[in-house]
Amino acid sequence: MRIHDLINSIRPVDKSLAGRIQAHLDDLTKPRGSLGRLETLAARYSLIQGTVQPVLGDKRIVVFAADHGVADEGVSAYPKEVTPQMVKNMLGGGAAVNVLARHIGAELTIVDMGVAAPLEQAQGLRSHKIRAGTDNIANGPAMTDEEAARALAVGADLGVEAAAAGAKLLATGEMGIANTTPAAALMAALLPCPPEEVTGRGTGIDDERLTHKCAIVRKALETNAALCTGPRATLAALGGFEIAGLCGFVLGAAARRIPLVVDGFIATAAALTACRMNEATADYLFFSHCSAESGHRSFFREFGTEPLLDLGMRLGEGTGAALAISLIEAAVKLYNEMATFSSAGVSDRA
Amino acid sequence: MRIHDLINSIRPVDKSLAGRIQAHLDDLTKPRGSLGRLETLAARYSLIQGTVQPVLGDKRIVVFAADHGVADEGVSAYPKEVTPQMVKNMLGGGAAVNVLARHIGAELTIVDMGVAAPLEQAQGLRSHKIRAGTDNIANGPAMTDEEAARALAVGADLGVEAAAAGAKLLATGEMGIANTTPAAALMAALLPCPPEEVTGRGTGIDDERLTHKCAIVRKALETNAALCTGPRATLAALGGFEIAGLCGFVLGAAARRIPLVVDGFIATAAALTACRMNEATADYLFFSHCSAESGHRSFFREFGTEPLLDLGMRLGEGTGAALAISLIEAAVKLYNEMATFSSAGVSDRA
Repeated sequence: MRIHDLINSIRPVDKSLAGRIQAHLDDLTKPRGSLGRLETLAARYSLIQGTVQPVLGDKRIVVFAADHGVADEGVSAYPKEVTPQMVKNMLGGGAAVNVLARHIGAELTIVDMGVAAPLEQAQGLRSHKIRAGTDNIANGPAMTDEEAARALAVGADLGVEAAAAGAKLLATGEMGIANTTPAAALMAALLPCPPEEVTGRGTGIDDERLTHKCAIVRKALETNAALCTGPRATLAALGGFEIAGLCGFVLGAAARRIPLVVDGFIATAAALTACRMNEATADYLFFSHCSAESGHRSFFREFGTEPLLDLGMRLGEGTGAALAISLIEAAVKLYNEMATFSSAGVSDRA
Repeated sequence: MRIHDLINSIRPVDKSLAGRIQAHLDDLTKPRGSLGRLETLAARYSLIQGTVQPVLGDKRIVVFAADHGVADEGVSAYPKEVTPQMVKNMLGGGAAVNVLARHIGAELTIVDMGVAAPLEQAQGLRSHKIRAGTDNIANGPAMTDEEAARALAVGADLGVEAAAAGAKLLATGEMGIANTTPAAALMAALLPCPPEEVTGRGTGIDDERLTHKCAIVRKALETNAALCTGPRATLAALGGFEIAGLCGFVLGAAARRIPLVVDGFIATAAALTACRMNEATADYLFFSHCSAESGHRSFFREFGTEPLLDLGMRLGEGTGAALAISLIEAAVKLYNEMATFSSAGVSDRA
């Protein structure tokens, strides 16, 4: 399926079952609404599956990795070499996302979308390198429209493939030194909002470098202004290969009606891009956590949604998404396994 | 050990290992501090165990159940019969806390501290009924000092017993119709703060009943003012049998240096009481979530601590604590299982 058709195939969730789902939640042995947002999670998950009897199953975290030309501007605290090093760390099981994927029992896949170093074949690594890193967005577009289309297709195929393999819950992760810069540029362009609101300290830069980073994001927006005619063109101009892959993955999940957990700031920029391509995409998304990356809070305010967790994390990789998966599973289990007032012989409120 | 001696045996956590623990956290393959509060969780857990190599293991949620004379004042949306009904529901595996205990792999114990109905012996039920419900705190003390001492000892023994059995993480739960009323009275007396700040809607009362509940809490504080000469006496005057049991359990865990996860509003009132008996107790506590019960937020502001989750839950039972256990375990696993910069060949920041 061409990406254009896949985007158009995404439909809003059918809310006609919402009343029956709520009635079941209200019949569980607890005061109405007392499970708070866990009830909303269970209801949204059920609506996405289109059932009053939601099913849990395999979970898959897909980490998209790539490098960024804009790293040459000195916008990150870490050197570019860290991208392939961290990919290898993930393949060896030693990164944070590995630990958390094991903790929640999720399968983990790493996708090379454009790491600027050769990566040997390995168990758990998918090679879909578009190119060895994007061009520097401060000087021109990150990638061509054709490259963006290919990256979107890679991500979409992975979402569709996971759905076909029976995955019930998908989650996004990413790795790419300097990628808070293109993510901030994308968010500023697509929310839209002033770049300062969504440009933060990333892996931990100081005040001076933050000022510089803001200037770079602003320059990227100005340099590419004429190219940013729509969400796909904006993604090509300002994004990154892993961000385009993430965006496609989100679209693929939504097209196949699979709940998808959005990780942190970069994944959110990709999810926002997907929502701008088809606003119905938002029905399938669970925003896992509020990153310490300052722009993330701005996003939630502007987008009008709330994350599940707020633990001051700013690592990415899928770490926040992994923690949120456990909450979503807890919510669905409560929906499925709790006794009802009638079955348990418990008196409802007077 | 008498409860007095147990309270005096609680020592502040030895912070001399904090530097080594932080050095290990900083050597893990992630930007420093980027796991946010998960790093704090891992560090506190390690300090409580007094080691730089923390160990996970069995988890135990203990639910203390009892009835309250003050229920006669019509302060709850539910009739008193629901306390034994919900205990039976828990013993049958159908309550929310059962589902979440299974989700995280924790053992669940229910303790009858003073349910106002006979309960048959059952697997998972411990019978330590002090009396069939407290007296009405609006008219006088909830219990005698001797009853409070017995309830404290029951809870403390359960904490000490769990530690001896090898449990590595304990969590509190409770069940008792009307128990937000004594919890609010205790908090108002021990924080201290005006009763309106800590009196909320409990299981879901309307404005009119909330005004009435505030008046009852105020009346309880006035009626028992002369008795409230210290935390133990205040607990006897304003508390409940399950709250006293919880308080003892917290003390027992702290005395044995076992990390303890505090559930919601009622458990917090009990934990506050324990901290007022010996302030070092706080070193052993993890506050799991901020309840939708409005007074809980006041507590966190006054006490100067922050909960891990804020999901609008207001069910109690140990449900918030169960979710937080999974976060704490995730944090300790990250500490133990992540690769270090040197071992993984990853470049640290420039």
